[in-house]
Amino acid sequence: MTQFKFDVNGLMPAIVQDEKSGEVLMLAYVDRTAIRKMLKLGKTCFYSRSRQTYWIKGETSGHIQEIKKISTDCDYDTLLIQVKQRGGACHLGYRSCFFHTLNRQGNLKRITQKRIFDPKKIYKVKNADETKTR
Amino acid sequence: MTQFKFDVNGLMPAIVQDEKSGEVLMLAYVDRTAIRKMLKLGKTCFYSRSRQTYWIKGETSGHIQEIKKISTDCDYDTLLIQVKQRGGACHLGYRSCFFHTLNRQGNLKRITQKRIFDPKKIYKVKNADETKTR
Repeated sequence: MTQFKFDVNGLMPAIVQDEKSGEVLMLAYVDRTAIRKMLKLGKTCFYSRSRQTYWIKGETSGHIQEIKKISTDCDYDTLLIQVKQRGGACHLGYRSCFFHTLNRQGNLKRITQKRIFDPKKIYKVKNADETKTR
Repeated sequence: MTQFKFDVNGLMPAIVQDEKSGEVLMLAYVDRTAIRKMLKLGKTCFYSRSRQTYWIKGETSGHIQEIKKISTDCDYDTLLIQVKQRGGACHLGYRSCFFHTLNRQGNLKRITQKRIFDPKKIYKVKNADETKTR
């Protein structure tokens, strides 16, 4: 990992993609320690910039991401992690976090994607919009 | 775009994905102006952090990315841009920038992906590794 280029905070973005369907599920951030944890566990692990702590995806929800392949780009400053996703990647109950589209006028539109779980039940919070994916 | 959350430098990461194959091609950064330019042009446009300038993908190489769909994630701090890629996304001659994999020991291995163009001819530079994707 000596070639890796982290930003001024020691982080780089990690894209998570469904290994079979190719669907982009989410993007989170990793540092060198999070990468080492992932290699050891075989599950995705990120660094939360807001909470300033490591988190394993699925540790609360059970919606873990089993790692199939980790790639890096030609600049060594971005990861692409291909996974087998259990449940949904998005803390709002969706398979993927990318469920809003931008039209030519710059306005966002919610895609009528079906929720696959109820975030209030999974994360045990009143307002799931205020929690983070875990 | 009022919901969008840019970082302290006014930027957010933008994942570029082949609309048909689902292949993740590259990741670059955008600010509000770059997004507006993309919406106007229908082609990807990014902000280069190293050169501190806007660049249209394909302006040198002709390898433009025709935008099919722009999505944002649930936090409104990442874009997913689905495109029709002409030529290759990577300035080193590959279709995708993600052509190195990381093994369980943390070592990188170059995937034996075939080059689809010669970067020395396209970008007119001696060492294509030193140029940036354009």
